[in-house]
Amino acid sequence: MENLAIRRLDSTEQGFAAELRKVLAFEAGEDDAIDRAVAQILADVKARGDAAVLEYTQRFDRVEASSMAALEISPAKLEAALEELEPKRRAALETAAARVRAYHEKQKIECGSHSWEYTESDGTVLGQKVTPLDRVGIYVPGGKAAYPSSVLMNAIPARVAGVKEVIMVVPTPGGVRNELVLAAAQIAGVDRVFTIGGAQAVGALAYGTGSLPQVDKIVGPGNAYVAAAKRRVFGTVGIDMIAGPSEILVICDGTTDPDWVAMDLFSQAEHDELAQSILLCPDSNYLAQVEESIHRQLDSMPRRDVIRASLSGRGALIRVRDMDEACEIANAIAPEHLEISAENPRHWAEKIRHAGAIFLGRYTSESLGDYCAGPNHVLPTSRTARFSSPLGVYDFQKRSSLIEVSEQGAQMLGQIAAELAYGEGLQAHARSAEYRLRRN
Amino acid sequence: MENLAIRRLDSTEQGFAAELRKVLAFEAGEDDAIDRAVAQILADVKARGDAAVLEYTQRFDRVEASSMAALEISPAKLEAALEELEPKRRAALETAAARVRAYHEKQKIECGSHSWEYTESDGTVLGQKVTPLDRVGIYVPGGKAAYPSSVLMNAIPARVAGVKEVIMVVPTPGGVRNELVLAAAQIAGVDRVFTIGGAQAVGALAYGTGSLPQVDKIVGPGNAYVAAAKRRVFGTVGIDMIAGPSEILVICDGTTDPDWVAMDLFSQAEHDELAQSILLCPDSNYLAQVEESIHRQLDSMPRRDVIRASLSGRGALIRVRDMDEACEIANAIAPEHLEISAENPRHWAEKIRHAGAIFLGRYTSESLGDYCAGPNHVLPTSRTARFSSPLGVYDFQKRSSLIEVSEQGAQMLGQIAAELAYGEGLQAHARSAEYRLRRN
Repeated sequence: MENLAIRRLDSTEQGFAAELRKVLAFEAGEDDAIDRAVAQILADVKARGDAAVLEYTQRFDRVEASSMAALEISPAKLEAALEELEPKRRAALETAAARVRAYHEKQKIECGSHSWEYTESDGTVLGQKVTPLDRVGIYVPGGKAAYPSSVLMNAIPARVAGVKEVIMVVPTPGGVRNELVLAAAQIAGVDRVFTIGGAQAVGALAYGTGSLPQVDKIVGPGNAYVAAAKRRVFGTVGIDMIAGPSEILVICDGTTDPDWVAMDLFSQAEHDELAQSILLCPDSNYLAQVEESIHRQLDSMPRRDVIRASLSGRGALIRVRDMDEACEIANAIAPEHLEISAENPRHWAEKIRHAGAIFLGRYTSESLGDYCAGPNHVLPTSRTARFSSPLGVYDFQKRSSLIEVSEQGAQMLGQIAAELAYGEGLQAHARSAEYRLRRN
Repeated sequence: MENLAIRRLDSTEQGFAAELRKVLAFEAGEDDAIDRAVAQILADVKARGDAAVLEYTQRFDRVEASSMAALEISPAKLEAALEELEPKRRAALETAAARVRAYHEKQKIECGSHSWEYTESDGTVLGQKVTPLDRVGIYVPGGKAAYPSSVLMNAIPARVAGVKEVIMVVPTPGGVRNELVLAAAQIAGVDRVFTIGGAQAVGALAYGTGSLPQVDKIVGPGNAYVAAAKRRVFGTVGIDMIAGPSEILVICDGTTDPDWVAMDLFSQAEHDELAQSILLCPDSNYLAQVEESIHRQLDSMPRRDVIRASLSGRGALIRVRDMDEACEIANAIAPEHLEISAENPRHWAEKIRHAGAIFLGRYTSESLGDYCAGPNHVLPTSRTARFSSPLGVYDFQKRSSLIEVSEQGAQMLGQIAAELAYGEGLQAHARSAEYRLRRN
């Protein structure tokens, strides 16, 4: 058995800041060969539509289909996938979906999904109109990394936002379908499903083909080809973030069962070798207990090789001066997932400014949030929580400013606008405002 | 004098859809040489910080400065720029700023800038915490295209959102400063101003240097180098949109003074040769009057060469069947600016789903919105209004999910999460949830 050596750091030691930077460092390598291949596939799909998508799917996924229509999964088959699910699993998936829906319904209300306006004393009306996107595409990876929970997390907010049509694409390498993913699509209310993937699926969604209509936004995770394709079509359609490796940061005051915390670190590490699990604690004794637990529990994990690689390569157990310093470090890291496993977690959560999701208290394992607590599990990674948010209803809506200037309002505003327009050398702007002035 | 020939289309004629697509077609040409130069400048700024920024600024802007500190404009100089403004212009700028601030304060309330949470019957608490970004960078172009109104529109929403520090960069080619821009920065409450520009300024904001701290998001327009640099640093920091050429679509029922509408088309066309001005009207007689007015008024416009190029190259006067069809076409175009110059404009606005800003009624010229009505003038271009929104307070805030599962809640959620985690083959996720179950 290979050894697991997880890094131990101490915030009081010299060079700590530099050490921490090293642990966090991650450069999403851009692969020129992938990018060139993707550019060519996209151009081809744009030019030749269905025919190109069909050819790439036959070639890359070894799927024997004679037309794009043959790559669409009928509503009856989606329904059947759900019907054939084992009852316990179906109940779990439906309860999770109901909870995710309830949370996002609440979010729709609280986050300001209503149009609004106000009238000024001279009759001028200002406001903003909120409308859902017309049509959204959801990319779902195929093969082993196909997660039904991702289908729920991407499709349900779109549905709650009022998106008229949700189209899912999911590759089926070798023609193998993931029935759990199809059942999740049915529960989430996906309208159409195509068994296509890769850059060709992103191109089909972005440009539209004969059989697949152009969408307005593409969301969902994918491999390096999918990520490169999403970057390239951004602007033609909207995209969600390009996600980096998943991360968990646990702040613990040393009062939680060390086995629980070790398993929480495992649950992130098991995703892939690049996932990052970090623990901050003021108690070095406790850190030693967690380290012991990691070694003790590792062998019983089916995914121990991935966990070992992840914890050895990117994990860290860090002793901090106190819980206040832990919160400061958390803000600097801006983690995707932050567990505050401590007495009075609210007290510490107050000090957190940057995190994708905050899990409070020792009963709130990240895995509960991943599946069924209700909030979205699509979260900002790689310090992007400094400026971005969990996927939400707001990602499937947009706003239009409303401006209705009264005749009286145009007198006041016209003079200001003209003054500033002349200052900027834009005389047509000025004159257009002046035309609305009464000629006395 | 060169001729102005503006395209005339008719929606009832065969081939109209294809013609319209041709008018709208715009490919933001990606320039590999620019992109390579930008990649190199960014890498250099990242590696060498202040020294690199200083060298590029000396070389590209021909500015003689011996240090980055010498490139910062002191608060006293900003204050002086405001004090020395001509009183009428200062009053106009201050009134515009006050109106923009008032609109965005209202937006902050209506668009859901509050944190929220709810408690379930078993004590589990779910919600979302809203926080402002810590630090934002605003790019302001130098030279002739320097618009004080842009400073207001970019900085004020950040301030209203609660951003702690706003840093502005503005190049000063040949050392020439735009006092109006500096005065606007002072009015808008910008904290620090550096006279740097181009990819080197974007790099300084994105990575931070010795003298200029790293920001969390960069907003504001720029040339091709700035746009390429923003695309490249996206992910390290947030960015606003990469704007395409500006556009106006006017829907008119034929009851507005043709000179007014012609001038509204001019006000977009005068921005640059690639700007797009389109008029939709069911009355071909009226279209002829507007065309006549365009020819009659053109020569009196100081920027007539730009207007002529823009209207000839990308403008169109389109006869439509009726106002309903005009609204349908508007939704397909998803214009940045939409003027509904008609009786009962609200009736038609109801039918609009996609537009950056909607200007209702004949007194609402776009130029009033550009400067001082209150809503933001940074708007989605090139059909991106299908999925994106005006710049707003929401662009300077982000959300963190809050999940606090009670001991009782963990019993119910733990079983569901474990069931689904086993289904996805993620055993550490399952066990982490199961550890929270009571052992009976």
